[in-house]
Amino acid sequence: MPNKIEVNQSLMQSNDQIAAAIRQQLLDKAVFSLNIMGSPGSGKTSLLETVAVRLQESSRIGVIEGDITTERDKERLTALGIDAVQISTILYNSTCHLNALMIRDALAHFDLSKLDILIIENVGNLVCPAEFDIGENKRIVVHSITEGEDKPLKYPIMFHTADCIVVNKMDLVPALKIDLKLIEQNIRSTNPTSPVFYTSATTKQGMDELLAWIEEQKAKKPVIRNA
Amino acid sequence: MPNKIEVNQSLMQSNDQIAAAIRQQLLDKAVFSLNIMGSPGSGKTSLLETVAVRLQESSRIGVIEGDITTERDKERLTALGIDAVQISTILYNSTCHLNALMIRDALAHFDLSKLDILIIENVGNLVCPAEFDIGENKRIVVHSITEGEDKPLKYPIMFHTADCIVVNKMDLVPALKIDLKLIEQNIRSTNPTSPVFYTSATTKQGMDELLAWIEEQKAKKPVIRNA
Repeated sequence: MPNKIEVNQSLMQSNDQIAAAIRQQLLDKAVFSLNIMGSPGSGKTSLLETVAVRLQESSRIGVIEGDITTERDKERLTALGIDAVQISTILYNSTCHLNALMIRDALAHFDLSKLDILIIENVGNLVCPAEFDIGENKRIVVHSITEGEDKPLKYPIMFHTADCIVVNKMDLVPALKIDLKLIEQNIRSTNPTSPVFYTSATTKQGMDELLAWIEEQKAKKPVIRNA
Repeated sequence: MPNKIEVNQSLMQSNDQIAAAIRQQLLDKAVFSLNIMGSPGSGKTSLLETVAVRLQESSRIGVIEGDITTERDKERLTALGIDAVQISTILYNSTCHLNALMIRDALAHFDLSKLDILIIENVGNLVCPAEFDIGENKRIVVHSITEGEDKPLKYPIMFHTADCIVVNKMDLVPALKIDLKLIEQNIRSTNPTSPVFYTSATTKQGMDELLAWIEEQKAKKPVIRNA
């Protein structure tokens, strides 16, 4: 199917150009940006509720929520006093991931000169979101322990491109037959260097460490990907 | 992006033609086919291990496993004495779903005159697999209760097109704050009629009911989708 590949390559080039422009725009306004990815139900939004509220103690936070449809996640964040906007990909051919064009549209919601951190929660999907640069500075993948030990091996692009891996729902360890060492070993086989945090939005386990990592990345001069 | 849409429409037409030919080929050989879909880690393979072994007591079973990469799921089935073949989509542009072309290739592994039931486990993904007809007679979506109550609302195409919805990992009910009535209500808002089974591969809850449904569908004259 050579036509498909050619057209996709052209679309990807266009996506990367828009993403680079977004990253420059955010850099100009000193906004640090995160792209949070993971399976449906891995706990991205619950984690984000805690992370955004804690970060808001010292920074001005904006959130872009991505889903095929519904505004539920935006409403969850807004209820906590977080400035959030929803992208429904049903308006963009129902794609299974966010792309840079959608982010460019959503940024119109914010006055970037009044933001310090922009957090983007991608569509729940362990495959395609990893293939699209959306102008972020850092990528976080949220992996629930309920998904089993083998997902880092089966979805290598997602884990390989992550700047930080969050192993989530640690409060469920007692209820599961799960080999945490095997999860870490499988993560390390696809991503030998990025930090791994073990978290629970219920017990708040690992939240301090994750927040410290985010603050540390924000304090560094943002890296321009693909520059 | 009109180019993308035109090319995709053309590819979908081609996919649907191959899928229709597969369905006819299976019908000619009296093979009943199932397409099992769901999120990464929703428990599709664990469920399939039980289902395939039980079905094999009275039928000749073949399994096609779909993943981006690894042959782990094929190996799990083969270890139980099930004839299984792996599709790694990394050989097909790393797509996040199976399509009819891949199934046509994988069918070469089987002597269809010696099969009664073909079970296809799709790539773990709640979005795109639902958009591709792969020549199946019936679709099952496996939804883990660990994914929360709102997924049927957020991924409506997957739940709407399912012939049967399996709410899985019921053994974890005591460990979770989960509203099962709300899950069923959300399933019903996108799919008012298909049966819903509550299962656990650990305790075997709901397996008899799910197996009875599969046998019942197999006994019916297979329906030709889109005919």
